[in-house]
Amino acid sequence: MFVRNCWYVIAWDHEIPSTQENGQIFTRTVLGEPIVVYRAGNELVALADRCCHRGAPLSKGRFEGNNLRCGYHGLLFNPDGQCIEVPGMSAAPAKACVKRYPVVAKNKWIFVWMGEPEKADRAMLPDNYSCDSPDWHYKPGYLHYQTNYLLICDNLLDFSHLSYVHEKTLGGSHAIAQSRAAVSDILTHGQRGLRVQRSVAEVPPPPSYQRIHTFSGLIERWWDYDFLLPGTLLMKSGGKPSKSNSVDSGEVELHSCQTLTPETEHSTHYFFQQGHRTGQGDAELAGSMYQMLIRAFEEDKDMIGAQSACLASAPDFTMLPLHLDGALTRYRRLVDAEITSESAAPAASQSSATTAATKRGPVVA
Amino acid sequence: MFVRNCWYVIAWDHEIPSTQENGQIFTRTVLGEPIVVYRAGNELVALADRCCHRGAPLSKGRFEGNNLRCGYHGLLFNPDGQCIEVPGMSAAPAKACVKRYPVVAKNKWIFVWMGEPEKADRAMLPDNYSCDSPDWHYKPGYLHYQTNYLLICDNLLDFSHLSYVHEKTLGGSHAIAQSRAAVSDILTHGQRGLRVQRSVAEVPPPPSYQRIHTFSGLIERWWDYDFLLPGTLLMKSGGKPSKSNSVDSGEVELHSCQTLTPETEHSTHYFFQQGHRTGQGDAELAGSMYQMLIRAFEEDKDMIGAQSACLASAPDFTMLPLHLDGALTRYRRLVDAEITSESAAPAASQSSATTAATKRGPVVA
Amino acid sequence: MFVRNCWYVIAWDHEIPSTQENGQIFTRTVLGEPIVVYRAGNELVALADRCCHRGAPLSKGRFEGNNLRCGYHGLLFNPDGQCIEVPGMSAAPAKACVKRYPVVAKNKWIFVWMGEPEKADRAMLPDNYSCDSPDWHYKPGYLHYQTNYLLICDNLLDFSHLSYVHEKTLGGSHAIAQSRAAVSDILTHGQRGLRVQRSVAEVPPPPSYQRIHTFSGLIERWWDYDFLLPGTLLMKSGGKPSKSNSVDSGEVELHSCQTLTPETEHSTHYFFQQGHRTGQGDAELAGSMYQMLIRAFEEDKDMIGAQSACLASAPDFTMLPLHLDGALTRYRRLVDAEITSESAAPAASQSSATTAATKRGPVVA
Repeated sequence: MFVRNCWYVIAWDHEIPSTQENGQIFTRTVLGEPIVVYRAGNELVALADRCCHRGAPLSKGRFEGNNLRCGYHGLLFNPDGQCIEVPGMSAAPAKACVKRYPVVAKNKWIFVWMGEPEKADRAMLPDNYSCDSPDWHYKPGYLHYQTNYLLICDNLLDFSHLSYVHEKTLGGSHAIAQSRAAVSDILTHGQRGLRVQRSVAEVPPPPSYQRIHTFSGLIERWWDYDFLLPGTLLMKSGGKPSKSNSVDSGEVELHSCQTLTPETEHSTHYFFQQGHRTGQGDAELAGSMYQMLIRAFEEDKDMIGAQSACLASAPDFTMLPLHLDGALTRYRRLVDAEITSESAAPAASQSSATTAATKRGPVVA
Repeated sequence: MFVRNCWYVIAWDHEIPSTQENGQIFTRTVLGEPIVVYRAGNELVALADRCCHRGAPLSKGRFEGNNLRCGYHGLLFNPDGQCIEVPGMSAAPAKACVKRYPVVAKNKWIFVWMGEPEKADRAMLPDNYSCDSPDWHYKPGYLHYQTNYLLICDNLLDFSHLSYVHEKTLGGSHAIAQSRAAVSDILTHGQRGLRVQRSVAEVPPPPSYQRIHTFSGLIERWWDYDFLLPGTLLMKSGGKPSKSNSVDSGEVELHSCQTLTPETEHSTHYFFQQGHRTGQGDAELAGSMYQMLIRAFEEDKDMIGAQSACLASAPDFTMLPLHLDGALTRYRRLVDAEITSESAAPAASQSSATTAATKRGPVVA
Repeated sequence: MFVRNCWYVIAWDHEIPSTQENGQIFTRTVLGEPIVVYRAGNELVALADRCCHRGAPLSKGRFEGNNLRCGYHGLLFNPDGQCIEVPGMSAAPAKACVKRYPVVAKNKWIFVWMGEPEKADRAMLPDNYSCDSPDWHYKPGYLHYQTNYLLICDNLLDFSHLSYVHEKTLGGSHAIAQSRAAVSDILTHGQRGLRVQRSVAEVPPPPSYQRIHTFSGLIERWWDYDFLLPGTLLMKSGGKPSKSNSVDSGEVELHSCQTLTPETEHSTHYFFQQGHRTGQGDAELAGSMYQMLIRAFEEDKDMIGAQSACLASAPDFTMLPLHLDGALTRYRRLVDAEITSESAAPAASQSSATTAATKRGPVVA
């Protein structure tokens, strides 16, 4: 069970070739639904990747101009998902069509809307500005998790793990875990989520910062981020010389956009970037920052995968809430409330029960 | 749930060594039942591959003359499946025995009867004459599918897919999909199924035909086949110069025998050959025809595997019947009727419900 | 469902490094429960390998002296399993703790107690004396089975299979299967199980014996063993010249300790050794005996794995009891009785139904 009235990132912009390019058809599964995404001229098209006839995936077919022909029995679909030709029939039946999803591009992210099409609202798109700005440099990242997305949300909502999971990459100090994050609600038009703010006063610079700016002494670090439905982190972070530090000057300023898209109940797409200011560092900086980030995110993936397996073997296990779980507990409540609200609405196309993955308590809560 | 009162092909004749040959014991699973097949002299023997004592597979034992000894605790079974020796006992108990299946060889195919033994009737064997005739040349083929057999029956019952799946191998023209097949019932003694006939008038010769006979102009092609329970295709096909073609002469004439044997609900054995007339083509023709056929059948397997996965992810999906589905819809009704009829009969050894795989509608219908 | 008030071997002594050694944390799953075992000084510690906070495995953390710190959010646990530090909190909550298991070492085997801690009784430890005695030489062995442990108990409780499964390794004669074992109950304080005794009078020496002592003629062989809950074999076996043999003298004397620990319902740890008298054979004997034993136990594993798969495909199959099944039938009754007795006791922490794996009849009985 997932929140459906949401924009989910299905791809980085560069992953979707133009129709004419090489005939490759992009497909990715979101919330259990395989979806073909392609470009009909300048327009993006997202269609269910399952022919209405016998269920073959359209992504095994071929483009004919802006249309898509099924590779099994040759039904031809236009960008609206309407079948416009059945070989051997004078006209295609009106009911021969596949679902078309609302799809938009914003700052290099391609979003699909998984809920009621009439509710699709561009105001609900996250402000992932650093993904497409002359002020920011980065290299785009993608990881695939064999884990329910909520365990990864948990991870992103509590940075105390930086001290332990990322001791040698993003962390570098136990002070992060010792500090307390301020958590507040975000409930503006379109945006639903939490604001999480944390800073530490006198810590050594982490290995990652030293790639951008060499500090000799201690620094002050901060992480200010919004974590928005369905699972998007937009974060300003950085570091500057601490009060006790009189030898260094200047600061590190980063902006990161990360988002989780459930593939199925048990697997997740993770799109991410961490940008630094244009002009900072050398020409290879974006590449080396990316390498460091991947290394750190593999540390997360390793831990979360182990946690997921450990939870799967203990269906009766109940998590023990601690002070550091404030943000993630509030976020899971928000997800549950949204799912309940969508289920209660008459137009909702899903049942009312929440799944194991979203319940607090056993398995993944 | 399967039709049981049927002959199922379990092997090509050459797959079953003589008992004395090398000690290798042939075993293959049919309708979920592992079965040992061996030769006791000139006689074929098919026994359940599961010792009645503790359930170890007899195929891990050894031959002693025409008998088979279990490799775990040494029980010795004769070709009737009767245990004739238990180590340490003066006489084997009468109830120590394994099931013996009726088994026959016909034209290089080895058939087992999976239903009530007293109903086994050689008149129900298909006429796979080209598998063992001096008039025909071919190379025998086998493929293993991780798919329910009915999705493969569907494929064989609708050749419109030749235009798309096999565009570059068996197909070569959209005209095949544009044409309409004539479908009629076969309900003679022993044989139950459909006759499917299709022809196209003015099409280019497919790549496969050019291996046999070089046509310069357009040709007329035809496919006349019987598709019989449980899943056997016996087909005459060919091509000759079309009416508009005055440059070519001669024709291509093929005979193909193909049969599907469910291994389990989710996997299938596929035995096939496509023969050409002895004397046609060069010495390597049978080999190159086989290579082309394998390439085409891998195209089917790739598409059907993708379709099967796509259906598995969408339990609520309902197929959309179109005109081209006439034969396969009728065939599925026939299968359902046979299963219902067997279930209703008092001697039937199975329950009355049809399985997901045989129901029309979601998943694989 | 398993017997819980039992000592289960979780490791050979050498598998558990000292805490300070290299930071590696030993973990193994017993009865479905992942357990960390480590040394706090001279004391053994066994803790649930699942942090009480969010369920991450503690084995992915690190040692700090005799304590264990979770690698996800940094909770620190002492050897009692009590959390003594939560980063960012002034004091850890009292209820933050993980289960501690009774754990003891005896003769190089490390045992954990899976039932009610107050019932843990060292008198119930098996007498695996040859695992740590100057009189005996051996090399320790371990195999992992993807099979329920009861199928392996069956194997160890009926040596008639030596004639067939181990014809070329441990067996060497059909006379073993022809002989009848004497089976009696063991119901002393702490020890519950069966005594199984078998001998054969005039047989050729098996290949394994010839590694220790060269016999030219026939020998007499015997196997006397106790098979104790939960699945431990303690065996004296050997051979000496038979009555008809006037050319040989001397004898082979072996002691073997083997034990099965269920990892899950579908997988099993198998710890074993077979020792010979110190001073017998050459310096390489222990190594070559081990190689021979591994080869023989792989023969068992191959057969039992095939049996397990064969049973899984036939849920309605019922085993046919024969005279040779006396010991294993009695042993399964004993296991069932223990499980029923534990379930009936008010302090028992499990439900009363026996699982498929322990029921007599289909699947694995």
